[in-house]
Amino acid sequence: MTDYHPGLDGVIATESSISNIDGKKGILSYRGYSIEELAKKSTFEETSYLLLTGELPKKEELKTFTDEINKNRNLPKGLLTLLENLPKDSNSMNVLQLAVSSLASFYSIEFSPEELKAKKYNQDYFLRVSSKLIGSIGTIVTAWNRIRQGKPYIPAQQKLSYAENFLNMLDDKRHSSDLVNKIMDATLVLHGEHTINASTFTAMVTASTLANPSQVIASAIGSLSGPLHGGANQKVVEMLDEIGSVDNAKDWLNKTLESKQIVWGMGHREYSVKDPRANILTDLVKELFEEQSGKVSKIFETAMELEKQCEEKLSKKGVYANVDFYSGILYKEIGIPVDLFTTIFAISRTPGWLAHWIEQVSNNKIFRPTQRYNGLGHKSYVKITDR
Amino acid sequence: MTDYHPGLDGVIATESSISNIDGKKGILSYRGYSIEELAKKSTFEETSYLLLTGELPKKEELKTFTDEINKNRNLPKGLLTLLENLPKDSNSMNVLQLAVSSLASFYSIEFSPEELKAKKYNQDYFLRVSSKLIGSIGTIVTAWNRIRQGKPYIPAQQKLSYAENFLNMLDDKRHSSDLVNKIMDATLVLHGEHTINASTFTAMVTASTLANPSQVIASAIGSLSGPLHGGANQKVVEMLDEIGSVDNAKDWLNKTLESKQIVWGMGHREYSVKDPRANILTDLVKELFEEQSGKVSKIFETAMELEKQCEEKLSKKGVYANVDFYSGILYKEIGIPVDLFTTIFAISRTPGWLAHWIEQVSNNKIFRPTQRYNGLGHKSYVKITDR
Repeated sequence: MTDYHPGLDGVIATESSISNIDGKKGILSYRGYSIEELAKKSTFEETSYLLLTGELPKKEELKTFTDEINKNRNLPKGLLTLLENLPKDSNSMNVLQLAVSSLASFYSIEFSPEELKAKKYNQDYFLRVSSKLIGSIGTIVTAWNRIRQGKPYIPAQQKLSYAENFLNMLDDKRHSSDLVNKIMDATLVLHGEHTINASTFTAMVTASTLANPSQVIASAIGSLSGPLHGGANQKVVEMLDEIGSVDNAKDWLNKTLESKQIVWGMGHREYSVKDPRANILTDLVKELFEEQSGKVSKIFETAMELEKQCEEKLSKKGVYANVDFYSGILYKEIGIPVDLFTTIFAISRTPGWLAHWIEQVSNNKIFRPTQRYNGLGHKSYVKITDR
Repeated sequence: MTDYHPGLDGVIATESSISNIDGKKGILSYRGYSIEELAKKSTFEETSYLLLTGELPKKEELKTFTDEINKNRNLPKGLLTLLENLPKDSNSMNVLQLAVSSLASFYSIEFSPEELKAKKYNQDYFLRVSSKLIGSIGTIVTAWNRIRQGKPYIPAQQKLSYAENFLNMLDDKRHSSDLVNKIMDATLVLHGEHTINASTFTAMVTASTLANPSQVIASAIGSLSGPLHGGANQKVVEMLDEIGSVDNAKDWLNKTLESKQIVWGMGHREYSVKDPRANILTDLVKELFEEQSGKVSKIFETAMELEKQCEEKLSKKGVYANVDFYSGILYKEIGIPVDLFTTIFAISRTPGWLAHWIEQVSNNKIFRPTQRYNGLGHKSYVKITDR
């Protein structure tokens, strides 16, 4: 192991049974189930259970798990007070990191690292803690969106699904159509897990010290917050705003390609064909397009045109629209504030991070790679007056 | 790269010029300077500057840097309010993670990831942000220690050094001797950096997404909080409490070695001779022993006896007392609450984590290792009623 691969590119960091990508065939599967089937037939709650346990739940198991998540969709009062005391212009990913970290303070018994240390964990423990995190994290984002606007917190409604409830708590003037709820749910499923990336890897490294799961997820959120990682769908929307209209798409693309600038939401290092998640979202975009017939937004039209132009120019190189291109447009179209996009990515990815936490602590070895020292040899300390 | 090394053991994850360990000779150096010289002749402030920049500061540089740290030793009012609203029995490492994360909310301009993204950083920026984090993190711990006891926050005193001020803010009944202040300062220097370990690696991975530095340090704190990583010196004190007295040390050790249980604070995977940091602390322990002549604590005596017994039995195997053995005893002896030991480790390590943040973003490649999939092949979705 004397080779050095910057960024550990190509280095096997773990054995994992959670998800798999076949980049040439455009296949992404969670626990063996293709993402197409899950996005169409499953829900975020059910897919979360699948990711965490490896199995689709039986009816009673799904009910217990969903009830547990739903119980945790309302936050402890102290956590709401904490959010109320933050500067209103705080970065949303930052708020999410600190609030998720604080869950171990508000639920100290559930998140006790002693439980982990004593290896008293089992599937019940993993599901209980996971449902607490999954239940809470959606509400942290919606509560923060209300609080920062000086609006009252909207309590969770037990009868609503995770996706519906999220949209409802985000802003009470919303009355989402079934299609919009379905789209929200599908994007949560699609972003649930994607093998090893910087944030998942961060979760694994943190988990390997047997840190408590709220600190594991908070660490992962830290990584996801970086503009090189979780922010691409937000960039897509900002790019489309910059293009401005259908008429500008072609010229803008030519100029951008000539100057070798980034076209956000195009291409993915893992896929040489179209990202399977993007395929699914394309269909949903079309459905939404039809439902909204006659009132299509400018940004939506611009995106469709840009994709058409990109297909003509880039598909030969294996560069296609990826999941971020469509999720950004869809979120924007259903009225979600742009600066919350990355927090929704974090919500979706929480079951995946937790699945890696479970996998890591169940067969643990602490992550301690090594370095190649390229610094100075021995130097003697020099008094400050002689420097 | 088809080999899989669990925990990335032996895998080179980076090239680094920050610190170096020669485990056979028992040498640890920061930027070329041996830890012995730094612990004796330098201070935490000066060593932090050295770690961050690679050079010992000139007089004027040290003054500017120290002034900047000192300015940040008082926290924004909102952050104190946040601490006041946490459950009083919160885990201290958890509080530290969320409070450090919140710094990016309270100082949003300084920690803007845009500054990083635009690569507008330079040494001034790095030192400015680092001094904010180093200045704040000590006060977060001391403020939390007061607030959780329902006692008023003790403001920082500008004329005190970092170490003295930390002890003073922790508890106002304290009037530390020069020796105790020197010990506090030396332990901060000794824990400042130690090549790649789980928390430093977490900082590097998070930094590689260009996340803002408060999220980078918060992620690292998450890793350090794990009982496999940062808690050893706390375990030493708990172990010594369990042994109870000098008379029990020999029997306890025999029983523990026979049953192959852990003797906390003994041995270090990096060193086959005595941990150089432990050597330095041994001298300080002896000095403290002399200063306190006639009023030596029971735990202190027990530790000395246990070390003697261990030396007889384990030194042939290259197992000696490590830095955690002594730092735990020293912290306990100077009256620091046991559950704050790991937070002090975090304070000490902040300059090291920040040095790796700077090194990472200055020559960045995002960390994205790969996995070996060992899960199931294709499975078809089954309706819930048919499961």
